[in-house]
Amino acid sequence: MSDALLQVVSAGVRTYDLGRPMFGGMPQSPNHPAFSHTLPRRHGDMVRDDGGSAANDLIVTGTHVGTHIDALAHVSHDGRLHGGADATKAGRGGRFTEHGVHTIDPMVRRGVLLDVPAALGVDMCDPAYEITPNDLESAAKSQAVAVGAGDVVLLRSGWGRRFDDGAAAYLGRESGVPGVGEAGARWLAEREIHAAGADTIAFERLSPVGGHGLLPAHRVLLVQAGIYIVEALALEELAAAAVYEFTLVLVPMSILGATGSPVRPLAVVVA
Amino acid sequence: MSDALLQVVSAGVRTYDLGRPMFGGMPQSPNHPAFSHTLPRRHGDMVRDDGGSAANDLIVTGTHVGTHIDALAHVSHDGRLHGGADATKAGRGGRFTEHGVHTIDPMVRRGVLLDVPAALGVDMCDPAYEITPNDLESAAKSQAVAVGAGDVVLLRSGWGRRFDDGAAAYLGRESGVPGVGEAGARWLAEREIHAAGADTIAFERLSPVGGHGLLPAHRVLLVQAGIYIVEALALEELAAAAVYEFTLVLVPMSILGATGSPVRPLAVVVA
Amino acid sequence: MSDALLQVVSAGVRTYDLGRPMFGGMPQSPNHPAFSHTLPRRHGDMVRDDGGSAANDLIVTGTHVGTHIDALAHVSHDGRLHGGADATKAGRGGRFTEHGVHTIDPMVRRGVLLDVPAALGVDMCDPAYEITPNDLESAAKSQAVAVGAGDVVLLRSGWGRRFDDGAAAYLGRESGVPGVGEAGARWLAEREIHAAGADTIAFERLSPVGGHGLLPAHRVLLVQAGIYIVEALALEELAAAAVYEFTLVLVPMSILGATGSPVRPLAVVVA
Amino acid sequence: MSDALLQVVSAGVRTYDLGRPMFGGMPQSPNHPAFSHTLPRRHGDMVRDDGGSAANDLIVTGTHVGTHIDALAHVSHDGRLHGGADATKAGRGGRFTEHGVHTIDPMVRRGVLLDVPAALGVDMCDPAYEITPNDLESAAKSQAVAVGAGDVVLLRSGWGRRFDDGAAAYLGRESGVPGVGEAGARWLAEREIHAAGADTIAFERLSPVGGHGLLPAHRVLLVQAGIYIVEALALEELAAAAVYEFTLVLVPMSILGATGSPVRPLAVVVA
Repeated sequence: MSDALLQVVSAGVRTYDLGRPMFGGMPQSPNHPAFSHTLPRRHGDMVRDDGGSAANDLIVTGTHVGTHIDALAHVSHDGRLHGGADATKAGRGGRFTEHGVHTIDPMVRRGVLLDVPAALGVDMCDPAYEITPNDLESAAKSQAVAVGAGDVVLLRSGWGRRFDDGAAAYLGRESGVPGVGEAGARWLAEREIHAAGADTIAFERLSPVGGHGLLPAHRVLLVQAGIYIVEALALEELAAAAVYEFTLVLVPMSILGATGSPVRPLAVVVA
Repeated sequence: MSDALLQVVSAGVRTYDLGRPMFGGMPQSPNHPAFSHTLPRRHGDMVRDDGGSAANDLIVTGTHVGTHIDALAHVSHDGRLHGGADATKAGRGGRFTEHGVHTIDPMVRRGVLLDVPAALGVDMCDPAYEITPNDLESAAKSQAVAVGAGDVVLLRSGWGRRFDDGAAAYLGRESGVPGVGEAGARWLAEREIHAAGADTIAFERLSPVGGHGLLPAHRVLLVQAGIYIVEALALEELAAAAVYEFTLVLVPMSILGATGSPVRPLAVVVA
Repeated sequence: MSDALLQVVSAGVRTYDLGRPMFGGMPQSPNHPAFSHTLPRRHGDMVRDDGGSAANDLIVTGTHVGTHIDALAHVSHDGRLHGGADATKAGRGGRFTEHGVHTIDPMVRRGVLLDVPAALGVDMCDPAYEITPNDLESAAKSQAVAVGAGDVVLLRSGWGRRFDDGAAAYLGRESGVPGVGEAGARWLAEREIHAAGADTIAFERLSPVGGHGLLPAHRVLLVQAGIYIVEALALEELAAAAVYEFTLVLVPMSILGATGSPVRPLAVVVA
Repeated sequence: MSDALLQVVSAGVRTYDLGRPMFGGMPQSPNHPAFSHTLPRRHGDMVRDDGGSAANDLIVTGTHVGTHIDALAHVSHDGRLHGGADATKAGRGGRFTEHGVHTIDPMVRRGVLLDVPAALGVDMCDPAYEITPNDLESAAKSQAVAVGAGDVVLLRSGWGRRFDDGAAAYLGRESGVPGVGEAGARWLAEREIHAAGADTIAFERLSPVGGHGLLPAHRVLLVQAGIYIVEALALEELAAAAVYEFTLVLVPMSILGATGSPVRPLAVVVA
């Protein structure tokens, strides 16, 4: 007799893929090593006696590329990681034993989508628009969902549509990028959520000139509140289907001591 | 009102982590580029005006390292991939548009564990032991689970305990490694499963001398039947808890055109 | 009694460094994997009992980056490498046994600098300017040097000054880049030189729009004539010193089967 | 009228290649990232309109692999680099501005080979044999060469013959490896040489068990004396030809801030 979870799953679930495909040349932050993939071995390079042949891959990449999660070790403030550990010492030896991405448990928990442009009555948040606590409140209200402790909260700005327009458009150095500022981050932190995500390259409002100059939302969430950040999410399909509440599945790579990991989160609901 | 899946999840689920942590020097096949992780930037290397600092990572790795999944593009036979595509042409351009790992949908489906040594009344299968169809039948019978079409079937040999003994012990070049041969693979293929996994470096019985010389189970599953293979799983905890049927969650990285991907599968049951 | 060469060297030589420093973010062709350098181990990460500590490096890079040499395996025409070998077969196995960079002998031989803008009476060749056989003749004449069989001939366009202005300026996608066309390449090939070099990203005249669309000089030199190409040279200091004839020392990395190698060529003269 | 150096070179020189070819799987220290080479692009992957096609490379490697040079930044003692700089601070930012490999000038200077086994009347120094100052004296004497200030001194132990026997034989973890100890290093340092080289994986006598446990010669040469170290040299051909004095050409890659570089040194003499 299968368990209650498997019964629901077997009856049929619908899975929304919130991760983006990874390929050389995809939009990514220039602050991180570029993703590249090559085939060291192709079929025909070495054929076994029975006619078998195997091809394989080499990947070179940063971890904060593609859709990815930031571990708490990623950001420090005034020389301290979340909880107060000395940030320089924490990285000694070339890996973060404390707060590395391997310390993030796989997530199978409640996820909430807050569709900000829908609440604002626009298609997409303007470049450099700061998403305010009011915006978050009104999105939650108009969607009739509450944000609760332990939730994974995904903020849609609509900016994710620019991903396919290439790096310049998506990174938005010239234009700025919409996102929360310190106030929005505090609103989320007060609700004691588990992780926060966005459809932009950084979980921040980026100004047209300043870019990644200061990262207040990272400070509030990662350093002060111990809340994970997920970036470069693909949220358009989920928003189009008006799925605001779902089972969020997110499994980081368990890289010992790394500051982050590419992820491919899923939103799962009954079909 | 949340959906039925979320209700079950919110009531409490237990998650078994079937993936292994990744770190430089971990046991992996010498046929694939070695996994390595380094910190290009550490805290203190570059401090922002507000006292913030970010550390980041560089990963260099094959994809068939750590716990990983083989895409259908990984293996060809007599110059053909599954379905008959020319294997050399399929890789032209440096990526497998057809049968690449990006074509594997995220899995949220029934998983079955077959605990072979438990059925055999031993602790661990002997080195180079070939797991037979009979063994699979008797494991299923003694566990009172049926293997059905679309399942992800994980075979425990017990060999996974050697992972912590280092590469020589786990790879078993001298000793050989237990696993299915052609017959066991056919038994699985006949049941039209979705994916097959093992707690060994290769989903194969490896002989003490021949090693990876021939890979009949790969041929049967990947090339002939179009069934994915998952390797280097951590199955001890699941087996110890006697969880033989569960919701299997497996989300490959969506690397365009790659032949495989590290994965961290989960077995999830109600708590 | 030391040999005649060592006597001259011991009496004092002056060495001009024709290679550029390598660093992450340096101007390089986007066609090749980006150069990056990181320190996996820093001092203090692991201290030996006696107080000793070692730091080390990880390099990820293409070979046609920084100042570099093209092996004959780099370019094919109509499916053939220099000498007629099948280009696809030549790369099977993941390395070029034939015509790989390991087949280039270290060079200690006559080098000649042709200072084209000096001959033209300008500071720097115009963007997209095609350096003609006439230009090469007049440079040789005004410098009173002859180009002979076996020489390494370095063409200065003056464009190298843009290297320090960053990738956009040096690569010249918008502006085009000065260099020889098919005619200039033929002029060099007829003289049976050993290798040809330039202070630009490609040994080609690049048009403002076409960029690397067609590479006639590569075809003439690498494929037809079997003459090596050296790119992204630093020639300003040599030209300023009016050193037109010298001992050229160029030692490629002996990477088995690679299509090129970073190099740091020297022009050496008696002090 | 060509200069005196070029006249000698043009009259004919013989070049001995003291570097080893680089390939995946070559013997190298496990302390450093493994060398690997792959072809991201092969001929036929992308053919230009005129029938041209280019293949290229991706290299992933440590710098202390293959024949290579150690920059002064490589080793510290009691937290200090050569000259007293704080070793931890020196690496901040991810590169060694001070004492990085980019600070090593290309070498065109007197080289001396000391053939130790020839002086000892044996074929190869025994495993774990410590080469003493006496050995160095007697080699110099029997070869009738003096070691002078500014020289590059290459010590042959004969162990280089094991390179082709694979990593286990060459690294000599079980057997130990011959080389100088602290006394031999001091002898060299007192002579104020410019660089010291050996045909072994480390410029040290390695004991059968201790391996790289302590590195006294590195301390004496790199930290105390500021003398560069070259390792994994190919010296057999030079020794067989009894060339004990020569022009040594060694040009490190100019990698900004790296702790070392692969090199391919040449010994050049008149033909």
